[in-house]
Amino acid sequence: MRPSRRAPDELRAVSLERGVVKYAEGSCMVKFGDTHVLVTATLEERLPPWLKGQGRGWVTAEYGMLPRATLERTRREASAGKQNGRTVEIQRLIGRSLRATIDLEALGERQITVDCDVLQADGGTRTASITGAWVALADCLSWMKTRNMIKGNVLRDNVAAISCGIYNGTPVLDLDYAEDSEAETDANFVMTGDGRIIEVQGTAEKTPFTQEEFLALMALARKGVARLVDLQKMAVA
Amino acid sequence: MRPSRRAPDELRAVSLERGVVKYAEGSCMVKFGDTHVLVTATLEERLPPWLKGQGRGWVTAEYGMLPRATLERTRREASAGKQNGRTVEIQRLIGRSLRATIDLEALGERQITVDCDVLQADGGTRTASITGAWVALADCLSWMKTRNMIKGNVLRDNVAAISCGIYNGTPVLDLDYAEDSEAETDANFVMTGDGRIIEVQGTAEKTPFTQEEFLALMALARKGVARLVDLQKMAVA
Amino acid sequence: MRPSRRAPDELRAVSLERGVVKYAEGSCMVKFGDTHVLVTATLEERLPPWLKGQGRGWVTAEYGMLPRATLERTRREASAGKQNGRTVEIQRLIGRSLRATIDLEALGERQITVDCDVLQADGGTRTASITGAWVALADCLSWMKTRNMIKGNVLRDNVAAISCGIYNGTPVLDLDYAEDSEAETDANFVMTGDGRIIEVQGTAEKTPFTQEEFLALMALARKGVARLVDLQKMAVA
Amino acid sequence: MRPSRRAPDELRAVSLERGVVKYAEGSCMVKFGDTHVLVTATLEERLPPWLKGQGRGWVTAEYGMLPRATLERTRREASAGKQNGRTVEIQRLIGRSLRATIDLEALGERQITVDCDVLQADGGTRTASITGAWVALADCLSWMKTRNMIKGNVLRDNVAAISCGIYNGTPVLDLDYAEDSEAETDANFVMTGDGRIIEVQGTAEKTPFTQEEFLALMALARKGVARLVDLQKMAVA
Amino acid sequence: MRPSRRAPDELRAVSLERGVVKYAEGSCMVKFGDTHVLVTATLEERLPPWLKGQGRGWVTAEYGMLPRATLERTRREASAGKQNGRTVEIQRLIGRSLRATIDLEALGERQITVDCDVLQADGGTRTASITGAWVALADCLSWMKTRNMIKGNVLRDNVAAISCGIYNGTPVLDLDYAEDSEAETDANFVMTGDGRIIEVQGTAEKTPFTQEEFLALMALARKGVARLVDLQKMAVA
Amino acid sequence: MRPSRRAPDELRAVSLERGVVKYAEGSCMVKFGDTHVLVTATLEERLPPWLKGQGRGWVTAEYGMLPRATLERTRREASAGKQNGRTVEIQRLIGRSLRATIDLEALGERQITVDCDVLQADGGTRTASITGAWVALADCLSWMKTRNMIKGNVLRDNVAAISCGIYNGTPVLDLDYAEDSEAETDANFVMTGDGRIIEVQGTAEKTPFTQEEFLALMALARKGVARLVDLQKMAVA
Repeated sequence: MRPSRRAPDELRAVSLERGVVKYAEGSCMVKFGDTHVLVTATLEERLPPWLKGQGRGWVTAEYGMLPRATLERTRREASAGKQNGRTVEIQRLIGRSLRATIDLEALGERQITVDCDVLQADGGTRTASITGAWVALADCLSWMKTRNMIKGNVLRDNVAAISCGIYNGTPVLDLDYAEDSEAETDANFVMTGDGRIIEVQGTAEKTPFTQEEFLALMALARKGVARLVDLQKMAVA
Repeated sequence: MRPSRRAPDELRAVSLERGVVKYAEGSCMVKFGDTHVLVTATLEERLPPWLKGQGRGWVTAEYGMLPRATLERTRREASAGKQNGRTVEIQRLIGRSLRATIDLEALGERQITVDCDVLQADGGTRTASITGAWVALADCLSWMKTRNMIKGNVLRDNVAAISCGIYNGTPVLDLDYAEDSEAETDANFVMTGDGRIIEVQGTAEKTPFTQEEFLALMALARKGVARLVDLQKMAVA
Repeated sequence: MRPSRRAPDELRAVSLERGVVKYAEGSCMVKFGDTHVLVTATLEERLPPWLKGQGRGWVTAEYGMLPRATLERTRREASAGKQNGRTVEIQRLIGRSLRATIDLEALGERQITVDCDVLQADGGTRTASITGAWVALADCLSWMKTRNMIKGNVLRDNVAAISCGIYNGTPVLDLDYAEDSEAETDANFVMTGDGRIIEVQGTAEKTPFTQEEFLALMALARKGVARLVDLQKMAVA
Repeated sequence: MRPSRRAPDELRAVSLERGVVKYAEGSCMVKFGDTHVLVTATLEERLPPWLKGQGRGWVTAEYGMLPRATLERTRREASAGKQNGRTVEIQRLIGRSLRATIDLEALGERQITVDCDVLQADGGTRTASITGAWVALADCLSWMKTRNMIKGNVLRDNVAAISCGIYNGTPVLDLDYAEDSEAETDANFVMTGDGRIIEVQGTAEKTPFTQEEFLALMALARKGVARLVDLQKMAVA
Repeated sequence: MRPSRRAPDELRAVSLERGVVKYAEGSCMVKFGDTHVLVTATLEERLPPWLKGQGRGWVTAEYGMLPRATLERTRREASAGKQNGRTVEIQRLIGRSLRATIDLEALGERQITVDCDVLQADGGTRTASITGAWVALADCLSWMKTRNMIKGNVLRDNVAAISCGIYNGTPVLDLDYAEDSEAETDANFVMTGDGRIIEVQGTAEKTPFTQEEFLALMALARKGVARLVDLQKMAVA
Repeated sequence: MRPSRRAPDELRAVSLERGVVKYAEGSCMVKFGDTHVLVTATLEERLPPWLKGQGRGWVTAEYGMLPRATLERTRREASAGKQNGRTVEIQRLIGRSLRATIDLEALGERQITVDCDVLQADGGTRTASITGAWVALADCLSWMKTRNMIKGNVLRDNVAAISCGIYNGTPVLDLDYAEDSEAETDANFVMTGDGRIIEVQGTAEKTPFTQEEFLALMALARKGVARLVDLQKMAVA
């Protein structure tokens, strides 16, 4: 039995609310149960120096957590003077995931920065961030289309992400914090709307896992992502 | 005429919503019009080293702004590697303001950290932060009282803050960003429920001001703070 | 009775010595009693990037304290790797104060950097810094005038600053360290030669203060600044 | 045809040389073709503060690259003042991989730090590091056993890692730099001696991949890791 | 002919003024011509962690330069966020030089920190710093002796330092900035009152020098240090 | 008797192996007994900003030590966030030493960066670094000559370095760690192939030394450097 009494293949309540801040070209408040992430997409007519003059744009991401998003307060990274290893890892993952379905040539020589700020954390902040980031990014691209800044399909497909894990010996979908801290194995899947894989990360937290276990997690993830993609489509419709 | 069509002594729509995050001992989403700040109060059974063993507690504050809280994206301070001068100045002001009405001996050897994170900025983020911080702090102290951790009146009075300025030659209350960027003079007042002053900061943005002008601003502030204190009392009732 | 036996409205012995270092375009050793600050003004033919091409110049300030300027040695900020919050707050105040009476268009596209380094600290380092900075700045502008780099009145008025506070229930002028550490209320006033206000900062160190108390402090400050402006005029004559 | 003319399932020449530095409790120079990593294992009778008094030890890793290990010189991280995101990600992966087969209780309240320094980089530095780190760690544990510091099987199994990718449409094993920079998909597998998975990381560099493609990579990895484990066994025999 | 018209073996005007700041246990304003350094010695009843419990004290030094001590303003190190290489090198030299004649056992488990802050720089700041630091240190030790904190001869001998160089083919003593920037060879000598050497640093700025040239510089230095030691003795008498 | 049983004027076994890494324009693994340093020389067609457009090139050096190069592990500087004082001092010395025999005009507007990374440290890492750096630099210049990038003699002479010290009252050559940590006096000499001096650094670790002692060390150094220069000539022949 899961602490939340969910079925093994049941997502938490997911919501994707658009247009939640006034200034950003795209924004989304994404909630996976008690995990709440505020995502904004910012368009800027500039590029990182190493990308200039190549006829391509760039999508990058930054990730942060408010100090009291967590059960115990964590130190503010701005005051500590640097982003910790986990933050760096997550924001790199979000950026890679988004870039994998965007046509950077069609975007033109511009940069979109996606900021994912966790207001409340109950497990799965990186998967919620990616899922909401796609919505904010889609809205930013619509904003550009309305202004004739881009043409055609810059965004080739949906991108959503979900975690799975082996909890008390059973593969389960969308771990919350109570499960995550106890799971033997933890995997995150980033997939497209057509079911292909953008990123897989599986980690044995306690004991190494078998290929069969991994395949069971992948099957769950496929199901979860399909559901998230449906929700994204409803959100941007 | 003010850009927002408000009367010179009219506040923006103010709301103070309590209990907005799951884990914090106290929290408040404070809105002054389009300025939205999420405030949390965290209780910790530890003290800064220089305060240990003196039989007193401490209240401190940290302030941050999400990168796209503003019209143009500002660089994330965690990624820049340090808090800028404005941030440092504001969080010191918030901390001093809160400490001025709290009985640190009655608090006991504990620290309360108040985090003020601006989700959307339209002027007056520091005054909104202080006004909301008082609510989060009051809730944190109630939480402690319920658990018999403190006795009596740790919080001696309300604390609220408001900005005033001279805009187009007229003293006006509660500047929004459009006014703030044009004002000749800008002043912030932090006051108690009984009308006394905790902190005054007046700055001539363009031309120095006279004592009479300053007194006109102070009269407006007194009115605004009285209204904010009423709203605080309703919020925590 | 004040520890220094001064009358409530009596300044410490003030001296403003010009030309104290060999290379700077303007310099001043300012002493308010045992508080000694070495101020230099440096002219550079460059601007911060965000100000380029706007036909205006800039005046900025930096503040520092020698490690043993204080009763106990304080850590060297260069070795700690950053300027602390108090330093940042003070140098921003000095910069704003100086800019408020300078005609930045008339200055032309140049930057003047004013460095205020405290050699010995006995309270009031920020007000001494501002008062001495005006002298160094005035000398720097004279240096420029001699070289036909500027015309007309770039400096519109004098700027001086003084602290006041309520010590043992009495409003007193120009707090030294012994008074400052005991004062209930502490206020700094930056004013022009014609008695207008550039910056007011009043802080309740212990208990909030009334408007009447604040006005008493302001009256004292007005007197003190008038005296400092006289001394500045004698110094640059 | 691969640039190196290797068969799709062919590793580069691998060597694992032990005892390459004088002072470390364990060390290994690991070479995967032109990728050379110097690994040392350091035993210290201390623990990170958050782990003290729990009856368990800790294994952690740090990763670095000499500035001219690469085709073009990369900036020295010590001089840049921080480790970049890629470095942080890799050293966290190495640490997690090693901890997954070590019995931290049996290790006792001690820390082993594994340093992986890349002397020459031709792709696969993280997989070479993990494979060599296991050898250095095993030697460090033997050193402890000889001194009766530990008993029984602290190291439960071998750990080795290999990369795979889809290069020119074909799944290939052990990517070198020429392949890595062109591959559509890139995956790293960390596995145990008995074929179970510790960590999987698969990334679509250009286009998302299918589950079938991913399974083909996993089959290759399994073969490669088995060969690496044989080489580890020969090395420590 | 030297720019200053001094004879080859002639020092600049040297002055050593004691007791120049109010709080420090020892202090000295040292001037070598237009090079002015304010030195303070601070006694603290604490030690660096690695020295605790060994029955010995420690003497360390920090060095800094006010931003406009130089012809052109140099960036404030506190604002740059770190001490540059030259600063680090100089403060290590000062510390080593002072420790070489002090009896650290006799000092007891305490630390003396010597701060050398350059108010004006015209060449030779490190040698002026060392020479003045000895005076500040001697005064700090007298202060301790008066309070019966130490007994006997903690300071075994005088320490002074001087630079020499080959300027226009001629060995000259005590280089000022005009000479220093043109010299072919530059050497700094730190010596004791009895003529022994504590530290020698000789650098070929342009062309390597011969042993004979080096010996000529050493002979000049010996003469210069003897004169400085006389001045120190007069100063502390 | 020296711990290593060497004669007072006997070097450790020295080897200079060229071409040890694949990508660098020049490289050398230098060993002075158990001190092993990997040196690379990198040519870049760029210059530090302050040197642009002057028709001259630049040679600079960076120095690092692998964490477990030493008896006890030292903290990785990249993780500590800065290079320590000793590192800064050494890399400045290496850079100065190399620049002293190179014709920077003949090099052209390019920069050569020499990286010296200590794989194993047993005393004398700075002298080994300089000696090996000359070989890597010479190879880098040969690489350029082969490509007709430079003409004539850019490298005017050999440069090598050796340490000497007074150990148990006897002047000895090429201190290893066991001697270095016990020596009363420690001196490093950087000299050219024709016996002239580029840099001398002599430090009294315990008691000041006499001029005679210093001359004895210089005589030993001269002998040692002559031998090192012979080995360099054989290496590059």
